[in-house]
Amino acid sequence: MEASSNPQFSKLPPISAKLFEAKKAKKLSFEQIGKHIGRSEVWVAALFYGQAKPTETDIHKLSVVLDCPESYLNHDVGSDYFPDRGGLMSVPPTDPTLYRFYEILQVYGYPLKAIIHEKFGDGIMSAIDFTMDVAKIENPAGDRVKITMDGKFLPFKKW
Amino acid sequence: MEASSNPQFSKLPPISAKLFEAKKAKKLSFEQIGKHIGRSEVWVAALFYGQAKPTETDIHKLSVVLDCPESYLNHDVGSDYFPDRGGLMSVPPTDPTLYRFYEILQVYGYPLKAIIHEKFGDGIMSAIDFTMDVAKIENPAGDRVKITMDGKFLPFKKW
Amino acid sequence: MEASSNPQFSKLPPISAKLFEAKKAKKLSFEQIGKHIGRSEVWVAALFYGQAKPTETDIHKLSVVLDCPESYLNHDVGSDYFPDRGGLMSVPPTDPTLYRFYEILQVYGYPLKAIIHEKFGDGIMSAIDFTMDVAKIENPAGDRVKITMDGKFLPFKKW
Amino acid sequence: MEASSNPQFSKLPPISAKLFEAKKAKKLSFEQIGKHIGRSEVWVAALFYGQAKPTETDIHKLSVVLDCPESYLNHDVGSDYFPDRGGLMSVPPTDPTLYRFYEILQVYGYPLKAIIHEKFGDGIMSAIDFTMDVAKIENPAGDRVKITMDGKFLPFKKW
Amino acid sequence: MEASSNPQFSKLPPISAKLFEAKKAKKLSFEQIGKHIGRSEVWVAALFYGQAKPTETDIHKLSVVLDCPESYLNHDVGSDYFPDRGGLMSVPPTDPTLYRFYEILQVYGYPLKAIIHEKFGDGIMSAIDFTMDVAKIENPAGDRVKITMDGKFLPFKKW
Amino acid sequence: MEASSNPQFSKLPPISAKLFEAKKAKKLSFEQIGKHIGRSEVWVAALFYGQAKPTETDIHKLSVVLDCPESYLNHDVGSDYFPDRGGLMSVPPTDPTLYRFYEILQVYGYPLKAIIHEKFGDGIMSAIDFTMDVAKIENPAGDRVKITMDGKFLPFKKW
Amino acid sequence: MEASSNPQFSKLPPISAKLFEAKKAKKLSFEQIGKHIGRSEVWVAALFYGQAKPTETDIHKLSVVLDCPESYLNHDVGSDYFPDRGGLMSVPPTDPTLYRFYEILQVYGYPLKAIIHEKFGDGIMSAIDFTMDVAKIENPAGDRVKITMDGKFLPFKKW
Amino acid sequence: MEASSNPQFSKLPPISAKLFEAKKAKKLSFEQIGKHIGRSEVWVAALFYGQAKPTETDIHKLSVVLDCPESYLNHDVGSDYFPDRGGLMSVPPTDPTLYRFYEILQVYGYPLKAIIHEKFGDGIMSAIDFTMDVAKIENPAGDRVKITMDGKFLPFKKW
Amino acid sequence: MEASSNPQFSKLPPISAKLFEAKKAKKLSFEQIGKHIGRSEVWVAALFYGQAKPTETDIHKLSVVLDCPESYLNHDVGSDYFPDRGGLMSVPPTDPTLYRFYEILQVYGYPLKAIIHEKFGDGIMSAIDFTMDVAKIENPAGDRVKITMDGKFLPFKKW
Amino acid sequence: MEASSNPQFSKLPPISAKLFEAKKAKKLSFEQIGKHIGRSEVWVAALFYGQAKPTETDIHKLSVVLDCPESYLNHDVGSDYFPDRGGLMSVPPTDPTLYRFYEILQVYGYPLKAIIHEKFGDGIMSAIDFTMDVAKIENPAGDRVKITMDGKFLPFKKW
Repeated sequence: MEASSNPQFSKLPPISAKLFEAKKAKKLSFEQIGKHIGRSEVWVAALFYGQAKPTETDIHKLSVVLDCPESYLNHDVGSDYFPDRGGLMSVPPTDPTLYRFYEILQVYGYPLKAIIHEKFGDGIMSAIDFTMDVAKIENPAGDRVKITMDGKFLPFKKW
Repeated sequence: MEASSNPQFSKLPPISAKLFEAKKAKKLSFEQIGKHIGRSEVWVAALFYGQAKPTETDIHKLSVVLDCPESYLNHDVGSDYFPDRGGLMSVPPTDPTLYRFYEILQVYGYPLKAIIHEKFGDGIMSAIDFTMDVAKIENPAGDRVKITMDGKFLPFKKW
Repeated sequence: MEASSNPQFSKLPPISAKLFEAKKAKKLSFEQIGKHIGRSEVWVAALFYGQAKPTETDIHKLSVVLDCPESYLNHDVGSDYFPDRGGLMSVPPTDPTLYRFYEILQVYGYPLKAIIHEKFGDGIMSAIDFTMDVAKIENPAGDRVKITMDGKFLPFKKW
Repeated sequence: MEASSNPQFSKLPPISAKLFEAKKAKKLSFEQIGKHIGRSEVWVAALFYGQAKPTETDIHKLSVVLDCPESYLNHDVGSDYFPDRGGLMSVPPTDPTLYRFYEILQVYGYPLKAIIHEKFGDGIMSAIDFTMDVAKIENPAGDRVKITMDGKFLPFKKW
Repeated sequence: MEASSNPQFSKLPPISAKLFEAKKAKKLSFEQIGKHIGRSEVWVAALFYGQAKPTETDIHKLSVVLDCPESYLNHDVGSDYFPDRGGLMSVPPTDPTLYRFYEILQVYGYPLKAIIHEKFGDGIMSAIDFTMDVAKIENPAGDRVKITMDGKFLPFKKW
Repeated sequence: MEASSNPQFSKLPPISAKLFEAKKAKKLSFEQIGKHIGRSEVWVAALFYGQAKPTETDIHKLSVVLDCPESYLNHDVGSDYFPDRGGLMSVPPTDPTLYRFYEILQVYGYPLKAIIHEKFGDGIMSAIDFTMDVAKIENPAGDRVKITMDGKFLPFKKW
Repeated sequence: MEASSNPQFSKLPPISAKLFEAKKAKKLSFEQIGKHIGRSEVWVAALFYGQAKPTETDIHKLSVVLDCPESYLNHDVGSDYFPDRGGLMSVPPTDPTLYRFYEILQVYGYPLKAIIHEKFGDGIMSAIDFTMDVAKIENPAGDRVKITMDGKFLPFKKW
Repeated sequence: MEASSNPQFSKLPPISAKLFEAKKAKKLSFEQIGKHIGRSEVWVAALFYGQAKPTETDIHKLSVVLDCPESYLNHDVGSDYFPDRGGLMSVPPTDPTLYRFYEILQVYGYPLKAIIHEKFGDGIMSAIDFTMDVAKIENPAGDRVKITMDGKFLPFKKW
Repeated sequence: MEASSNPQFSKLPPISAKLFEAKKAKKLSFEQIGKHIGRSEVWVAALFYGQAKPTETDIHKLSVVLDCPESYLNHDVGSDYFPDRGGLMSVPPTDPTLYRFYEILQVYGYPLKAIIHEKFGDGIMSAIDFTMDVAKIENPAGDRVKITMDGKFLPFKKW
Repeated sequence: MEASSNPQFSKLPPISAKLFEAKKAKKLSFEQIGKHIGRSEVWVAALFYGQAKPTETDIHKLSVVLDCPESYLNHDVGSDYFPDRGGLMSVPPTDPTLYRFYEILQVYGYPLKAIIHEKFGDGIMSAIDFTMDVAKIENPAGDRVKITMDGKFLPFKKW
């Protein structure tokens, strides 16, 4: 199981191990869980990795799809839970799958900032009012990963 | 001008300052330059920041649109030029526009890896056979930045 | 002059040295400049340190109060200028005045996060849609520094 | 529960876990505990996170409001206890809520130092003779977080 | 046994300790295991160190050669397992055997990049579509280690 | 030209810039220079990057092939010159071509050490009594980079 | 001269080089300068190293003892000058004289904190309302350095 | 109790926890223990924090004053014990009481070195042949901490 | 006992704790053990700290002198054991005894390299084909530590 | 010339470049200079690298052997000069010749500390009252580098 067989998962909250175990026992993908609870698979994975907070409804639906007592989830990720985000990976990440995203930022970071400034002005793309999706584009020359990020533009306030 | 008025641009190759000056003098956006030379605005910005290598045709078209001698560009970014990529930003980036992308990686990195593995198997999204685009989505509640990354999936070889 | 007699000011863009010189020649405080151009003294100082972008009106008013050619300011911090923020200080800051703010974050960071979560829910205080002010509270037992930060609460989006 | 479900809470002293558990069992906010014991909610949260030292009276009142034996609190945070402050967060903090405060320091640190110097002279705002408060300002365009810091100005001694 | 008597092996997933124990009990070298399962000894060692993912056939053959229940291996490195690669060594590595490879990169890195660029153009040698072998070349003046790396050349995409 | 148009080349000794300029003017590859002076192209590139020391004969032949005064080379890389090796790249390297070699070490380092130990015993592969070659293997599915390292095995001395 | 012949003095403000030159030309020790201007030699040295701010009277007396125009000092360290303290040394310091103080902190830091807490309660010794002196204690078994630090105790405020 | 309720005390040797517990049970200050065994309170605290080695006589006297079996102390800090000093605090220290000493070194380090050199010549103050004391100076404007360090001057040997 | 009473010994392999315990129980110095097994005391200490690999004969002799079952040693440091060297100390080392060696390298490193180059040419002193000894030179002005390192010179190969 | 053709020599004081130039012009080795002035070649090299302070007699003899005006040397390394030691190399050193010494410390540091403690008790080998020599031991199987360090033992003071 992912959560227990990789040492860095010791950085995850205890609930994560239980969620991953339930997912494995039910043989469900993140996409399938997402469809059951009406959320994106990326957000569901973020929840499993301790990076998102579910609503009461999310908890109820999760308890159904994972066949896991609602009280149990409420205790660990209920209303008084707040994720302490980030910090799972070393910097720079050593895993090649993660590193490539870091490299993209190293190589295309300033070009990206310049384009955002030309299109929007002085500000940022929010990482809070933000969604991300991953699609598989089949291609005979090799399938392609297509990642879409969508964040609100926030202009710097002057005062 | 961006290149000269920000101290970290001292990390750019000398050709960058000249490209930014020519762009400023011609009052062209990266999008406009991209359209003239038949490249994406992100790739053009990457070229200006010393992160991409142009073809001979790119150099010819750039010399036209920027009104800059072709021999001059050939000397600095011609056939025997190879970019030494990355290294422009501190890690983590201090600039808020850049930092948000870093934060997205910190928060959503493992979820992203998990989804890629579920959809594709054991491998990575290439950062070399890769393109990226930025779009502005107008929205009365606040415009949104939409970034699309498209990279070839590369499975880990077994031998 | 501050800008030239402290070595770390080499990290500032060239325009900063000129702004500080003009301010010194005119014997103006940031508060006085702020009143002339209708901005907070903190924002004005941020502009001098290369951390903010002025509007055309700001540039016009600055040129008047600092007795400095408008074309000159337009060249360096005009419409196609975007600040590359952060990066001025070492981390942690070595200067005692700056360090105390860093220490406050070290000591009261998690308490602050907990209180924000109890009052607002899962989210952040924006550092973009944000203002800050500094007041001097006279007190016979020793004057006090009163700093007020005011940022929009941004809830984490679920999707 | 916050203390047990987030891995970094392993950095807190054992008493913290017990305080958070008692708070959860009694369904009290920091604000409510603060009102019961006559302290600010920020200071109470600092105490829970091992960043403050209670008086005997604080301990007595805490034992009442949390329904927790006084002898128990005296053993762990009694007269011979001294907090070993700081060190809870990584630097820079990975959590977005905490990071924004760090970013404010990166961007507005030197401007803040300059304003303090103009208003007070050569010295610092104390982080010891210091209080901090957090208020929620309701606003139809989005609620705002208002943080007030109040610290004694200390001039550098000459000798 | 390697896995248990060296402290840094605490960074390996639990399955690694079991694989090393089985290997020791059966007194098999990586080369011998590789021959049994039809894989390179380097790849087999990578699997033991948690850096590769086996196919179902690999798992079956491993269970035979190591005399270890297939269900057991399937639980830990089966279809829903994905290695979290890298991160085993400190950087730079302190062990002299590992450090020499790091030193080769420090000394011959740019020469290597220059030669690749002269022979292939602007791109990289893939570390994913990649194999590596180690041979012992006997020599009366001292045996020599011969390491062969073979990776696909990937040209940087322009777009 | 590589040496002058990439900022990190400021870390190279002055002779490097001159060698790169002469090479560019003569339109020679490292392979061609190597053939002229009877050395491997990798070693020649190492010399250009300040990582190797030439013999008097090397200097003589280099002065012929590069059409560069021998006295000039003798002054900078003559008998009393000793390279101060390493230090050209940041760690980890930000350039993708260089990073892939670093990643190979991160992922396959311990497997490599284990195989060396199984084949040779307790010791290291020398990085001093060492050669390296790069070959281009043409392949319709994509050309491949083949790198061969050959170093003397040195057993740890017991005393 | 100290300021110019040691490379790390490039971190000092320009005025420092001039002060050190004047001191050398007049063959004065810090103790002698201190006696002339009525300040401790440690404080005078701090001023020369850019770590303290002089009063108008200090500037006047310095100009006399160093035979240096008052207007000149006023320009660089006059009323609108504020030192940007710290940052002169690497951490940990490489120079043995400086390192020993760092080592004392490493070894005796917690003991020092414990003794302060036992004698004074929960608080700090101020580094702002602070003086330091250095004395030479002659001793036939080897002279001894005696350093006295004197700082105001500041108790942590509760609120 | 200090040793057990602060997480960083996990870095102390096991004997430390026992010494702190015995001290707490006997309600003794370091000063009182120091008087009983004829040592400075700072040295006693250093012993408790694993930074000093006691003589046999020290161990005997400690066992009496702490009411703790001598054999027990002999086992852990007896003749074959050698402290592994330093390493208790993070660098820079996050605790404000400790940080102020670090800040003093940052700000007054070079001035201190300059004064030592002017008074003694080229050398260091020993941190080994060294003592330190802490005194409380009562003062109606606020009590003051007075720290005295006394170390042998060691001149750099020439050979 | 050294191994158990110092926290950093948690970095040693489990066999180390057992070797140190046996040494303590037998009241043997490293010098005495070395004489029994025919090895230098430094090499014996290196073995205890997990930095060397014993031969079968060494294991046999160790089992005799330490009165420890041979099978036991064979299991942990037998033929399939390979030390994972380095990594015991923090860098720079915090312990003063270790730090002084680090300081010698900081201060005398380049002089040492220059002398080696003048005497031997372009190459290194091997740390593998290497021995080290420690002698006590009695001296009425204070005993002296004399350390002798003896390593094979390895010239850089040209190819 | 060493000083000017290696980029890291920019960290040396200006006098170093001049000393190296004079040495090169006179074609003298450090050993020869050492014999002329009656100092060890290692100490002479340390002086050239800015790590030692000469006496007046040393300066006089140096001016003779290097044919360099005495007033010139007095200005830069005369009586009011104090070396700011260390800081020349990166940590860990990237140069293989320097790295091997660092590796010896990593591998044999704790063994060395243990032997010193067994032979001398609780203390350090001084790096100040210290000499070092380098000898070439000719050997048909490969010459050997023999380095001898000799430092005063300093016991930790108790007080």
